[in-house]
Amino acid sequence: MKAGNPTGAVATPGPLVMIAGGGDFPPRLAGILAARGERPYIAALEGAADPAAFGERADVRQYRLGQLGSLLEELRRRGIADLVMLGALPRPSFGSLRPEVSTLKYLPHFAKAFQGGDDHLLRGVVRFFEMQGFRVHGPADIAPEMTAPLGTLGRKQANSEQRSELERGFALLATLSPFDVGQAAILADHRVVAIEAAEGTDAMIRRVADMVARGRLKIGKGDGFLVKVPKTGQDLRVDMPAIGPDTLRHIAEAGLSGIGVRAGAVLVGDRAALGRQADQLGLFVEGFP
Amino acid sequence: MKAGNPTGAVATPGPLVMIAGGGDFPPRLAGILAARGERPYIAALEGAADPAAFGERADVRQYRLGQLGSLLEELRRRGIADLVMLGALPRPSFGSLRPEVSTLKYLPHFAKAFQGGDDHLLRGVVRFFEMQGFRVHGPADIAPEMTAPLGTLGRKQANSEQRSELERGFALLATLSPFDVGQAAILADHRVVAIEAAEGTDAMIRRVADMVARGRLKIGKGDGFLVKVPKTGQDLRVDMPAIGPDTLRHIAEAGLSGIGVRAGAVLVGDRAALGRQADQLGLFVEGFP
Repeated sequence: MKAGNPTGAVATPGPLVMIAGGGDFPPRLAGILAARGERPYIAALEGAADPAAFGERADVRQYRLGQLGSLLEELRRRGIADLVMLGALPRPSFGSLRPEVSTLKYLPHFAKAFQGGDDHLLRGVVRFFEMQGFRVHGPADIAPEMTAPLGTLGRKQANSEQRSELERGFALLATLSPFDVGQAAILADHRVVAIEAAEGTDAMIRRVADMVARGRLKIGKGDGFLVKVPKTGQDLRVDMPAIGPDTLRHIAEAGLSGIGVRAGAVLVGDRAALGRQADQLGLFVEGFP
Repeated sequence: MKAGNPTGAVATPGPLVMIAGGGDFPPRLAGILAARGERPYIAALEGAADPAAFGERADVRQYRLGQLGSLLEELRRRGIADLVMLGALPRPSFGSLRPEVSTLKYLPHFAKAFQGGDDHLLRGVVRFFEMQGFRVHGPADIAPEMTAPLGTLGRKQANSEQRSELERGFALLATLSPFDVGQAAILADHRVVAIEAAEGTDAMIRRVADMVARGRLKIGKGDGFLVKVPKTGQDLRVDMPAIGPDTLRHIAEAGLSGIGVRAGAVLVGDRAALGRQADQLGLFVEGFP
């Protein structure tokens, strides 16, 4: 998985900590590792990850963001130097961190990282752990089977007209990248109808559904596409775009026809399950080079 | 007003028809013309313009979009060859036009124009009237006093930090132009938080207000800016971006600090009134070269 492994770090790290946010991806990665006989230490972030989701046999402890100091101490005690971060995180306000005493000394590093786009914040987080001596791995390095493959996930595939619309969407997102914005967009009716910024992909899809419901937007049969790709320079180790069952459901509810993503660079979780869901909903979900 | 007059058309046309959509701009232009002793023929579009808004002495008649044939006949009967279009139009579906018989022959021209972005549609409309022998003027050519001037409308002015954020927003919008999208965006918290596509500027502002209300977005004092400019190649004669009292009110309600627009290329209607409102709301509203 070259795309997710810009540093060339080894794909089979030593004792591993997974810093886990919300959603299905962290438990899924833990499951994939367990099937390989690996048992990572799981730091489940309070308010985001549910420790119970990792099963009874998982080595999991809950941490607040403000408990960074405790986490580092525990990782050192365990001799863990390999790290993967995965799952949805609410963008916290710097003021809401409630840092414990052993975390206070790290705050100056993060104070600056909090000013700027998500890219900027996450780059700051990666740099922090690297400065602390950790190797930061991407989920795609550790479990490439969690990303979108090249080609379609289900039976449906974009036809040539749909594909040319998707290419226009990919070009649009590439153009937005230098502004640290634009991970996703929706094209319909031969135009760009929505561009994602701070609201997130799901809110953008709901907006399109709402425009359709109010008659402001007409989406014909076979029309309407979500495109989602990483931003250029986005660090796929800690900030990989993702689609999941909710994305597909919302896309179908909005009356759209399919999803185009960058193969190997967008998390999908369970490829087979998502492919089955795509077939049930009559959508194409396809990875492009 | 070079910016609003890309064709170099004369600024004082002959007998004029104003094709009027919704909002305050068409009555305002009629008022400006009346003050100069000019009395245009006003074609008030049904469902958009209120004929009564032009006053009792105005020469106004209501037309449906499907009555294009009748309108052309009336204009020829009156010897009118100069035309200005102004005001908000719902984007109609091609199927909802209910064309009268004398309009049917013009439909093939519009069928193609309806497929594509707003730019594409409006270019088709302009080309149509030009092919029919009309000179299409922009409101900015006829009444430059209706556009944003260079500099601030009220007392407040963007400081250097705010200005550099606005410049980033202008650069973002310029980048989006080739995709026929991106007339406005909102910057806050040192990042791009919203980009306008099919939803329109007001819906985009409401989205930001909603993110603030839900704590997803923090906007500090003096932070948060709307930028609005024409797209490159946008025909300012028929598709000039606009801000008005509602825009300012929504911006203030969302907790944003100001508005930056392209001077001479964005309609503001009544400069003095908008400046007073900006002062009351504590906003800057400023035109940039």
